[in-house]
Amino acid sequence: MEIKPGKLLATINSPADMKAMRPEQLHQLCDELRQYIIDVVSVHGGHFGASLGVVELTVALHYVYNTPYDQLVWDVGHQAYGHKILTGRRDEFPTNRKYKGLSGFPKRSESEYDTFGVGHSSTSISAALGMAIASKLKGETDRKSIAVIGDGAMTAGMAFEAMNHAGVADSDVLIILNDNCMSIDPNVGALKEYLTDITTSPTYNKVKDDVWNLLGKLPVGKNFSRAMAHKLTDGMKSMVSSSSNLFEALKLRYFGPIDGHNITKLVDTLKDLKKIPGPKILHIVTVKGKGYALAEQDQTKWHAPGLFDKITGEIYKKKFDIPQPPKYQDVFGHTILELAEKNEKIMGITPAMPSGSSLKIMMDKMPHRAIDVGICEQHAVTVSAGMATQGMRVYCNIYSSFMQRAYDQVVHDVAIQKLPVVFCLDRAGLVGDDGPTHHGAYDIAYMRCIPNLIVSAPMNESELRNLMYTSQLDSLELPIVIRYPRGEGVMPEWRTEMKEIKIGTGRKLKDGEEVAILSFGHPGNFAAAAIRELKNDGLNPAHYDMRFVKPLDEGMLHEVFSKFDKIITVEDGTIVGGFGSAVAEFMVANKYKAEIKMLGIPDRIVEHGTPKELHRECGYDAQAIADAVREMMKDKVVVTSFG
Amino acid sequence: MEIKPGKLLATINSPADMKAMRPEQLHQLCDELRQYIIDVVSVHGGHFGASLGVVELTVALHYVYNTPYDQLVWDVGHQAYGHKILTGRRDEFPTNRKYKGLSGFPKRSESEYDTFGVGHSSTSISAALGMAIASKLKGETDRKSIAVIGDGAMTAGMAFEAMNHAGVADSDVLIILNDNCMSIDPNVGALKEYLTDITTSPTYNKVKDDVWNLLGKLPVGKNFSRAMAHKLTDGMKSMVSSSSNLFEALKLRYFGPIDGHNITKLVDTLKDLKKIPGPKILHIVTVKGKGYALAEQDQTKWHAPGLFDKITGEIYKKKFDIPQPPKYQDVFGHTILELAEKNEKIMGITPAMPSGSSLKIMMDKMPHRAIDVGICEQHAVTVSAGMATQGMRVYCNIYSSFMQRAYDQVVHDVAIQKLPVVFCLDRAGLVGDDGPTHHGAYDIAYMRCIPNLIVSAPMNESELRNLMYTSQLDSLELPIVIRYPRGEGVMPEWRTEMKEIKIGTGRKLKDGEEVAILSFGHPGNFAAAAIRELKNDGLNPAHYDMRFVKPLDEGMLHEVFSKFDKIITVEDGTIVGGFGSAVAEFMVANKYKAEIKMLGIPDRIVEHGTPKELHRECGYDAQAIADAVREMMKDKVVVTSFG
Repeated sequence: MEIKPGKLLATINSPADMKAMRPEQLHQLCDELRQYIIDVVSVHGGHFGASLGVVELTVALHYVYNTPYDQLVWDVGHQAYGHKILTGRRDEFPTNRKYKGLSGFPKRSESEYDTFGVGHSSTSISAALGMAIASKLKGETDRKSIAVIGDGAMTAGMAFEAMNHAGVADSDVLIILNDNCMSIDPNVGALKEYLTDITTSPTYNKVKDDVWNLLGKLPVGKNFSRAMAHKLTDGMKSMVSSSSNLFEALKLRYFGPIDGHNITKLVDTLKDLKKIPGPKILHIVTVKGKGYALAEQDQTKWHAPGLFDKITGEIYKKKFDIPQPPKYQDVFGHTILELAEKNEKIMGITPAMPSGSSLKIMMDKMPHRAIDVGICEQHAVTVSAGMATQGMRVYCNIYSSFMQRAYDQVVHDVAIQKLPVVFCLDRAGLVGDDGPTHHGAYDIAYMRCIPNLIVSAPMNESELRNLMYTSQLDSLELPIVIRYPRGEGVMPEWRTEMKEIKIGTGRKLKDGEEVAILSFGHPGNFAAAAIRELKNDGLNPAHYDMRFVKPLDEGMLHEVFSKFDKIITVEDGTIVGGFGSAVAEFMVANKYKAEIKMLGIPDRIVEHGTPKELHRECGYDAQAIADAVREMMKDKVVVTSFG
Repeated sequence: MEIKPGKLLATINSPADMKAMRPEQLHQLCDELRQYIIDVVSVHGGHFGASLGVVELTVALHYVYNTPYDQLVWDVGHQAYGHKILTGRRDEFPTNRKYKGLSGFPKRSESEYDTFGVGHSSTSISAALGMAIASKLKGETDRKSIAVIGDGAMTAGMAFEAMNHAGVADSDVLIILNDNCMSIDPNVGALKEYLTDITTSPTYNKVKDDVWNLLGKLPVGKNFSRAMAHKLTDGMKSMVSSSSNLFEALKLRYFGPIDGHNITKLVDTLKDLKKIPGPKILHIVTVKGKGYALAEQDQTKWHAPGLFDKITGEIYKKKFDIPQPPKYQDVFGHTILELAEKNEKIMGITPAMPSGSSLKIMMDKMPHRAIDVGICEQHAVTVSAGMATQGMRVYCNIYSSFMQRAYDQVVHDVAIQKLPVVFCLDRAGLVGDDGPTHHGAYDIAYMRCIPNLIVSAPMNESELRNLMYTSQLDSLELPIVIRYPRGEGVMPEWRTEMKEIKIGTGRKLKDGEEVAILSFGHPGNFAAAAIRELKNDGLNPAHYDMRFVKPLDEGMLHEVFSKFDKIITVEDGTIVGGFGSAVAEFMVANKYKAEIKMLGIPDRIVEHGTPKELHRECGYDAQAIADAVREMMKDKVVVTSFG
């Protein structure tokens, strides 16, 4: 089904086509852009609420600024659909987030309008400031840099670091704070309360309006000099000093708050700000999901709803005749609650992912013991460490790729001190549609090199529950990582009785001949499928679910290397320094000399697609594992076992 | 020479011994504590200025609070010497930072008064907040948690993240902001300017004094209820709203600024604050190096001056008859300036380490092209990435262990986008006296798993210059890591002519027989020394300086594995997932079957000591390498080469 853009939108092949529009036409363009996003996302999927919320801002920015010469950086980037549609990617937009299609995030290799690749939050101010400093050094004094950042992303320390630098860098950077009170879940923290205060306080707004009126009366135009700008600033400063705010404290000139859905006001304001040099912040207030009533009402649900009927608002769910396996995240969510009901030391921490991690299940029941700390992985880890010093058993749930943000805290605050924090790494492995920024590709490598840390991965729901059960026992005195993938497991009947797993022990799933397959985590299921397939070829490899990459089950590995000289390792992490590498280290340290084939994520950036497509592409799905076994058996050179 | 503590200090074996003192005795105790620190550090070395600056605060905290029940967290921790001396470690204090002696930082395993191990900055608020939340849950309502953090550490995003949470967590945490305008170098950034503003503004202080007086008139005591505290807070809020500040914006009650060297005022203030529930911040102003005139005057020099004559202030320098090799950091500092003079695209970025990294050399000459961005590794990396999008060639210099703070930014903002940022990782490997928190033990493992990244290490000064030269050529289109150790290189005549190194090529330093030693970086010199020693045994191993762990020199490795079946790898990084592991991966992928002995940092936390002591302990100094060769040759089992 072809989706047709509206009449005006159909004429926009680049922002240059907007420049000739009369300001009043922009209303219609906004309507058409919003409608096109609804039309496409309802049929093709993707993020929804965020892009609807910034339709007016997107149009205003490309209308007022000279993109791509002026540099626009979208924080996080799942709100950039409108931006993509207006910058030459309208007709490609239905391929959004599909294999080989457009990326769901801005991406430098995709368009010159995408000045900086994003995906993780809170990078935009740093990036835009870097651009501004470089432009200034190169003498491009007319070139503007703009960062658009949400109030959720603003809570991450990185944004504060960038503002602390921007405030004194004397560079021409504009920060647009898109305040919609939401991350994926509602925002939390002192900053959110503060923004609500300044948005709603009548006194504050009165002062602001005075300033705004003053600004309106000034001779803003060609002759608006740097000196005048300073004068204006000074005047404003004294006027607003009675409500001097957080951003002013950081030496950023603060403007706003203004209605982010008033296109006329936005265009006028941006035109004014363009003439004011130096670091500054514009605070706009928007509604996530704006223009689609249901999305405005339940913003978390409509963050990325999947496919839906745009008229009725019905979100399509696949229907099945037989019970399906649950998502790993839900197994986590239900199991932590189940454990916490019996063990009062258990706490849960999530940095802004209560829904995504399913910690919400515990938060609803035990609000004091399960806490959303906002987008702040660093703090999330160290506050967990602080709690652990008091004997609490904290389950700190962070997506694998986001855990990269708290790497030092894992080393410095947890592992060195041997504090028994439990790190649940959701979205470990290839995540699918979100692509390279969100793939949890590196955690096996970056975690297993840390002393004192236990690193585990369950092959299925029951194993996840057992690992979680084991992690809260007093006998466990070290920190532990439990990594599991995005999406569903394999056990429709997943509420198995929990039992302790001895740390550093694997499971022999199947005896076999000639070849041993060692798997780590969920891809063990791919290996099991491969083994079923290989039966038809008369091949009968052994299968070991190693379960721990640290400590390795050395007893089991001695068995494996004594019996087999052909070994295949399977993991959903990079093969550079990963699980296979750990097995190779064991082999070398113990002077075994087997042939090892390592299957996993190759040493390159893997783009987006469905997990199935990507597992295929990367060569570690069932078929690839079966092929590897066949290849090893075909390739029967004389190899002596040295065990 | 025995160093005797003063009369009062000699009686303090734990804070309990201070409780009986009359307030006026505290002056003398402060004097004696300060003197003891000067006496010991001048003879035994260590950090100096920071501890002198918090003598009064340290005494006041232990006098007023019930430590260790009340939990005191020192940020960074090199200011905690006074704390150590007052908490039962007075007589051990001369072993500070020595092998097997006291740690230079608070350390949980050392004392129950050290509630949280520190070293890296800006962790204290998160840790103390975690303790406070846990205490509250456990019903320990009388238990206090206190974080002492400098204004430098306050610029790191992690501190902001923690405050954003603290402001709404309703926990009894006190943050003491120790404002001395210094990190190791003078502080930078908007926050610093803001703190200066509120410290010096008379209007602001007038309002604050009013509040303080109000506080003094309130019935502070047993009957001071929660409701009354709220009333007070509200009253204060309206009073200070006319100068509402950054911390108040984050919902922290703000008190101060007060003179941090007035022991009476400090004690009285802390006694008052102890009775006020909820999250709050006390701003104290101190002078780093207080009480030692020279240290007050040149605070960077006296941060950790080495040994000195406490009377004359002469800092002892070793004298040598022949020219000595320079520090690697100075080779970096001089070389970047030399390159930048010819290549106008070159910029330098340091997060608060201008002196430590020697980027200061370029900053002095080119202040617009070499920038200290404050303690903010995350921002430092991404602002560099932003500059790189504009064609700049940015040398972002971050110590190896601090780079752990910016791991996600290296992956997400640099490597995925293939932006050619140059990461100079100083202090890579075992750093010596600073110990586990500062060892650069993991970077080889955590960097080499990232796609698109080049990871290199120079064996000497000339190689460092060549790698730096190569890194700024337009032909290099990928990001590169150059890691080098703390301290001196090996070339007194280090200003060699620079030449391009082909990326991914090693150097064969010496042909040999039976055994090949593959080294990565500076420990190549240990290997060379071992080879000289082994000549006496009639042993003649080959030696390859691999120079790159990513990409590996595959041609060279094919040569090595074709010729040798006994291989020793040497690196100053963890052997888990490190350089040796990369060599093993190559062997496995190419079906070679050699014996490999990996020497490097073992998989455990290595404590402090001199680098020499630690290289010995970890088994990769010259002697250990020689022993490994002997062992391999002794152990002549039948091994067939499969090359």
